[in-house]
Amino acid sequence: MLRAVVARLAPGAPLVDLTHDVPPFDVRAGALALERVAPHVGPGVVLAVVDPGVGTTRRGIALATETVAGPSALVGPDNGLLVWAAEALGGVKASVTLRRPPGASATFDGRDVFAPAAAALWSRAPLESVGDPLDPADLVRLPAPRVERGAHELAAEVLWVDRFGNVQLAATAEDGRATGLLDRSSLELSLGSSGVVVTVRVVGAFGELSGREDAGVLVDANGHLAVVCDRRPAATVLGVQSGETVTLRLPAGERP
Amino acid sequence: MLRAVVARLAPGAPLVDLTHDVPPFDVRAGALALERVAPHVGPGVVLAVVDPGVGTTRRGIALATETVAGPSALVGPDNGLLVWAAEALGGVKASVTLRRPPGASATFDGRDVFAPAAAALWSRAPLESVGDPLDPADLVRLPAPRVERGAHELAAEVLWVDRFGNVQLAATAEDGRATGLLDRSSLELSLGSSGVVVTVRVVGAFGELSGREDAGVLVDANGHLAVVCDRRPAATVLGVQSGETVTLRLPAGERP
Amino acid sequence: MLRAVVARLAPGAPLVDLTHDVPPFDVRAGALALERVAPHVGPGVVLAVVDPGVGTTRRGIALATETVAGPSALVGPDNGLLVWAAEALGGVKASVTLRRPPGASATFDGRDVFAPAAAALWSRAPLESVGDPLDPADLVRLPAPRVERGAHELAAEVLWVDRFGNVQLAATAEDGRATGLLDRSSLELSLGSSGVVVTVRVVGAFGELSGREDAGVLVDANGHLAVVCDRRPAATVLGVQSGETVTLRLPAGERP
Repeated sequence: MLRAVVARLAPGAPLVDLTHDVPPFDVRAGALALERVAPHVGPGVVLAVVDPGVGTTRRGIALATETVAGPSALVGPDNGLLVWAAEALGGVKASVTLRRPPGASATFDGRDVFAPAAAALWSRAPLESVGDPLDPADLVRLPAPRVERGAHELAAEVLWVDRFGNVQLAATAEDGRATGLLDRSSLELSLGSSGVVVTVRVVGAFGELSGREDAGVLVDANGHLAVVCDRRPAATVLGVQSGETVTLRLPAGERP
Repeated sequence: MLRAVVARLAPGAPLVDLTHDVPPFDVRAGALALERVAPHVGPGVVLAVVDPGVGTTRRGIALATETVAGPSALVGPDNGLLVWAAEALGGVKASVTLRRPPGASATFDGRDVFAPAAAALWSRAPLESVGDPLDPADLVRLPAPRVERGAHELAAEVLWVDRFGNVQLAATAEDGRATGLLDRSSLELSLGSSGVVVTVRVVGAFGELSGREDAGVLVDANGHLAVVCDRRPAATVLGVQSGETVTLRLPAGERP
Repeated sequence: MLRAVVARLAPGAPLVDLTHDVPPFDVRAGALALERVAPHVGPGVVLAVVDPGVGTTRRGIALATETVAGPSALVGPDNGLLVWAAEALGGVKASVTLRRPPGASATFDGRDVFAPAAAALWSRAPLESVGDPLDPADLVRLPAPRVERGAHELAAEVLWVDRFGNVQLAATAEDGRATGLLDRSSLELSLGSSGVVVTVRVVGAFGELSGREDAGVLVDANGHLAVVCDRRPAATVLGVQSGETVTLRLPAGERP
């Protein structure tokens, strides 16, 4: 539906679906997906809708970014969905509260408010033509993902389970190096919810694991640590969901 | 596959996926989805395939519409899939029975018959170049969705459960106003299949409901009444499926 | 993500999604899907990623095809995914091992290696500019699908279960005619795994079956024999999965 509206209002605009994999109502998952893809998007306008608060007092917003090579604006609800992506693009240069076109429904701002604004911005309308100035400091922000570096251990939130079942952690390669964990050949992994502890091998790629091994840890393509299996969904194998906290630490025998 | 064929036969045609959410074999769901999106589509040709009758004597058709601003033609099977959308676009101006290109398979008219016709029409071929005249009065039509206005009550078919689990009814805002139901703050909802009766609050948007409440009724973005929850799938919470009939009425104590 | 990268590196390239239906890690399913769609794709570059071996020593490749009207190149991993499609397009004219751009991650060649190569080839860069010559005879190939013609019988691998549950066999219409099976009105079908035997009617289209019948056999739109039901998923009804072998033979009473 959004594609139809943008194609109608901005004829000739090339439409590129960035992802179809955000679960319903999961603003955080949408914000993380957008943050991952943002640096790979070329010039244009990003339209994003994960919007359980539609019809309430939450604002619709458009953000101008500092990026030189990427998208010049992001459009969507002011619920934290857009800010991390804007920061991955160099930061928020300016922001506006979107005006509602006459006749907009109360329950589908994606179609009635965001898509028209995105089409206008793609057609080079200035930011202030679609909304009223809003101080970027007033934008709604989601809590930062949890990462805690300890002595020879790292506790981190599960950010994302991709469609292959890979478990992306909030911890980055830098966290892994700073704690010395990435220098080891294997680690202990504690699963937050179940208390289960498994041994995981530190690898460079999926294919270094054999199908028999429980799981491994690698630096994924976004620079995060990820828990993965070989051709099996690690999240299912281990029973882990996004939002949980897992802990990586040195194996018992190797702790100083 | 259809996208590949159209892109090959009509190079440069911008392809816009209108929906991916029609269940297999469900012509009625496809017809309703198309009717919802049609008014938001710009100039062009709509290609739609939900076609359990492929290979039988059912016709392939192309319809020219009365619309000024929207799609000029719709292409697909003559099983009721296209007619409601054409009417949402002002009506059927002319229709043809599609000719079958030599070598067309018996089981994939989408690829072999409809996509080539849509590509030709997009390239400005006249309607009669892809088929033989067909009286619009002879087009196959699906039964109209059931809505029955009573004294202080409204029985309506469930038209659609969207991917968030919202339950769209055949009844419109106008039905809700005419029966006085939309003026009340809460209503009684009887579920056809189970006999279960729940109280639902009349709201303007999802976010007016709390996560604790069973469900609410609102006027959705297509002007229909819909039964919804806050960040939960109402269809699952209530156990309702499309095709069933539900009844909205005044709460027992408020009936005259 | 791949769409974003190609759109950024090759602005204006029309992006056409060929399929979304390949199960994770299933290289064979991807190779078969690509082979089916390849003859219907127009000029351009095909990018395909089903790549459980990413990060190992498996090569990334680009293949130039012999086709006149179809895609001039295919890009992806050297694991058998691309070769059948190239052969459906007239054969492999030349092939190269892709060079890895500086900074490519170890786990997402689709984004970091294949998409940039596909964008370059679409922008008319010569094949040798993206990689080093590779003898097409050295390309990795998957085992050919199993088909065995017997006296009045045909044993064939299940190639694919489509999203309607239709069961496509490795056997072709030619196999069906050569064994005389397609001349009969009904056949016996043995299911490899379960040993179950059912009678299936030979039909020309789905709609010739009634909803009551177990299943039928027809020549599908790709020229293969397929086991199908009327508006029900044959794979579920019969309990068949891709990769299994099924046998079609004359009914007991009709065997010579």
